[in-house]
Amino acid sequence: MNITCSRKDLIEALDAISKIVPNKPQTPILSGVYMKAEGSALELQTNNFEIGMKIKIPVNTEKPGVIVVNARYLLEIVRKLSGEVVNIFHDEEKHTVNIKSDTADFNLLSMSAEDYPTVKSPETFAKFSLRASVLKNLIRKTAYACSDDMDSKPIFTGCYLKLEGNTVSMVATNTHRLAVMKETVSENTEDLSVVIPSKTVTELIRLLDTSNPSNTVSIECSKKNISFTFENMYITSRLIDGEFPPYEKVIPKSSDTIATIKVAEMKNPIERISLIAKETENKNIQFIFSQEGINISAYSPDIGRAEEKINAKIEGPDLTISFNYSYMTDVLKVLDSKEFVMKLTKPLSPADIREIDNDNFIYIMTPVRTY
Amino acid sequence: MNITCSRKDLIEALDAISKIVPNKPQTPILSGVYMKAEGSALELQTNNFEIGMKIKIPVNTEKPGVIVVNARYLLEIVRKLSGEVVNIFHDEEKHTVNIKSDTADFNLLSMSAEDYPTVKSPETFAKFSLRASVLKNLIRKTAYACSDDMDSKPIFTGCYLKLEGNTVSMVATNTHRLAVMKETVSENTEDLSVVIPSKTVTELIRLLDTSNPSNTVSIECSKKNISFTFENMYITSRLIDGEFPPYEKVIPKSSDTIATIKVAEMKNPIERISLIAKETENKNIQFIFSQEGINISAYSPDIGRAEEKINAKIEGPDLTISFNYSYMTDVLKVLDSKEFVMKLTKPLSPADIREIDNDNFIYIMTPVRTY
Repeated sequence: MNITCSRKDLIEALDAISKIVPNKPQTPILSGVYMKAEGSALELQTNNFEIGMKIKIPVNTEKPGVIVVNARYLLEIVRKLSGEVVNIFHDEEKHTVNIKSDTADFNLLSMSAEDYPTVKSPETFAKFSLRASVLKNLIRKTAYACSDDMDSKPIFTGCYLKLEGNTVSMVATNTHRLAVMKETVSENTEDLSVVIPSKTVTELIRLLDTSNPSNTVSIECSKKNISFTFENMYITSRLIDGEFPPYEKVIPKSSDTIATIKVAEMKNPIERISLIAKETENKNIQFIFSQEGINISAYSPDIGRAEEKINAKIEGPDLTISFNYSYMTDVLKVLDSKEFVMKLTKPLSPADIREIDNDNFIYIMTPVRTY
Repeated sequence: MNITCSRKDLIEALDAISKIVPNKPQTPILSGVYMKAEGSALELQTNNFEIGMKIKIPVNTEKPGVIVVNARYLLEIVRKLSGEVVNIFHDEEKHTVNIKSDTADFNLLSMSAEDYPTVKSPETFAKFSLRASVLKNLIRKTAYACSDDMDSKPIFTGCYLKLEGNTVSMVATNTHRLAVMKETVSENTEDLSVVIPSKTVTELIRLLDTSNPSNTVSIECSKKNISFTFENMYITSRLIDGEFPPYEKVIPKSSDTIATIKVAEMKNPIERISLIAKETENKNIQFIFSQEGINISAYSPDIGRAEEKINAKIEGPDLTISFNYSYMTDVLKVLDSKEFVMKLTKPLSPADIREIDNDNFIYIMTPVRTY
C-alpha cells in the first residue's frame, strides 16, 4: 500500500474510529485500525464486536493494499504532524507502516491484516431510511434515561426503536424513569421493533451531521444487528435480545395537580439546589406545589439547606413530593419548548412531564420516598 | 456577621482559596474558609499548614463578625448564583450561615471560628520587594525542574531563592537536570538564601498579576517561613529545611560540540518524536549532531520508530547522545529567545542549554545511557 491523503480527512476518520477502539482490547489486533486502499478511496475499519465502523476518505492511491496499525498511536501522530498531506507506505518486508509529512518520518509496526475481524454486513430483513435530524432528536430526547447500572437487566441499557405506520418512536427507561419520543415521518417504513445499546446511539448522535436538513440515514436490520449508513460512514451494532416491557402501562392515566412552568425559571434554581441534593443519601429535591408556585429545597444534615421559590401556574390540590435531582436536571436539558407541564397525583405516584401543547415527548419519573 | 458583597469579588477570592484547601483535611475545620468582616472589608483565610492565604475584598458590613464554612460548597454555590450581589448572614443561634442572592436561599452549617488555625505572621528577619514580573519569570524558568518524586530528598522538591547584592536567582534541580535563572534588580535587597516548596511557587505564579509592570511583591522571611504580600493577597509558606547543594559544580566548564538551533524548528519535531519516546523504557530521544544538522529519533520495539532532521549550525565534532524527552520539551516551553545554544562534550556528559547571547538562564541536563 502506498497512498497520499489530506491530513484533515485522516484526523476526522481516525477520531471517529478511535472512540470505538477498545481501551483494553481482548487481543492486540483489536487495538488496530484496518485500512484498505483501493482506487481513489481509503476505507478505515474498527470492530469491538459490539460496534463496528467503516469510514471512507478520498486518497491518491499509488499502490493499493491492506494494513492494520495501532489506532491510538496513528491518531496521536497524525494530529501532531505539521504538513497538509500525509503519505502512508506499507513496507511489507519490514512489517512497518511508514508515515511521512513534511520533515516527520514515522515507522509504525504493522499487524497482520489477515487476522483482523473485518466488519461484516449480515443479511438484513428490514431496510428503511430516516432523516438524520429525526434520528438525532429521537436519541437526544431519550438515551440519557437508559440504565447505566452494569447490574441491571440488559434490556434497560438499550433504547427501544419502534416503527409502526408513519410513526417512529424511541423509548428508554431504567425502571425509575422513562423517556418516550415520537416522530411522524413521511418516508415509507416497515413495522419493526428493536433494542439498540445506548453506547451505539450515543456514538451515532456524535457523528450525525444535521447541518443539512435533507441528510438521511439508511438503516438496515438483521436478526441480531442494526446498521446505519450515512455520508462516508457505516456503523453496525449488535442488538439487545429480549422483550422491551410494556412501558405504556407506566404512563399515568389521570392527574390531580397540574403545574405549568417556564423552563428557564426552573433550570438555574434546580442546578443550585442540586449542589446540596447530590450530597444527600437519596439525592432528592423536595417540591411543594401550592397556589403560590413551587417551593424547591434540599437538606443535608452535613452541609445545610437550600431553598428557592419558582413562579408557576398550579391547578388542583397542593402537593409535597420528592424526586432524584438528576432525573429533573436531565429532562430540563432536553425540553425544547419555553414552558412545560408537570402532572402529578400523589406523593408516591409518578410524575408526567411534557412540552406544552405537544404529546410527542413524554417523561415519567418515580418519586423518592423521604419518610 | 451580616455583609453584602459583589459575587464576582467573592468568586475570585474563593477560587484562589480553594486551591489551598486540602482535599482530604486532617480535621474537618481545615475544609473551611475563615471569613472575618470588619469595616468595609471581608478577609478570607485558609491554612493547610504548608501554605496559608489571606485575601481581602470590599464589602458592606451591616454587622461585623467571624465565620467558618465549608470552602468547596461555598464556592460551588456562589458560582451558581445568578444575582450580582450576595448577602451573607450568620445565624449564631442556629449555627448556620445564610447565603442569599436573587431567588436563591442557602443555609450552610457553620463551623466554630474559634477552632480555626488562623494564618499567623511570624517575626521576620528579612524584608525586601521584587517586581511581580521578575518573581514570575524566576519561577516560570525554574520550578518545573524540581523533583516531583515523593521519595526524593525534600530539598529537591523546592526552589532555591538567593539574593546577593543586586542579583536575585532561583534554582531548581531533581539531580538529573538543573534550571538556574538570574535577574538583576535595582531594588535594595538583603543577602539571603531559602528553599521554597515548589507547590508554593506554583500557586504564587498563578496569582501574580503582571499586567502592570510596576506591580511589586513584598517578601518577608522568618526562620521557617516566607510570606508574599501583593494587591489584596497575603500568602505564607513553610520553607524547606537543609542546605541546597553546590549546583554550580554541575555546570560544565568547557564543551566540544556547540549547536545553535531555532526554537521554532525544534519544538514540533520534539513533540512528535516524544509520542514514541514516552512509550519507551528510558523515555529517551536520540540526538545525532553532525555537520548536516541534528537527526532526532526514538525507537520502541512495541510501536516503531520516529525520525526527523533539524537544521542547526554545528561547531565541533559529531556526537550521538540521548536525553529524557520531557527534559527537552520542558526547556523548549520556557525559552524566550528565537535561537538557543546547546553545548555538549561526550555522550555521557551533561548538556548545557542557554538562550542565545544571554547567560541569565542556564539549563543543564544529564544524558540517558542507551547501551
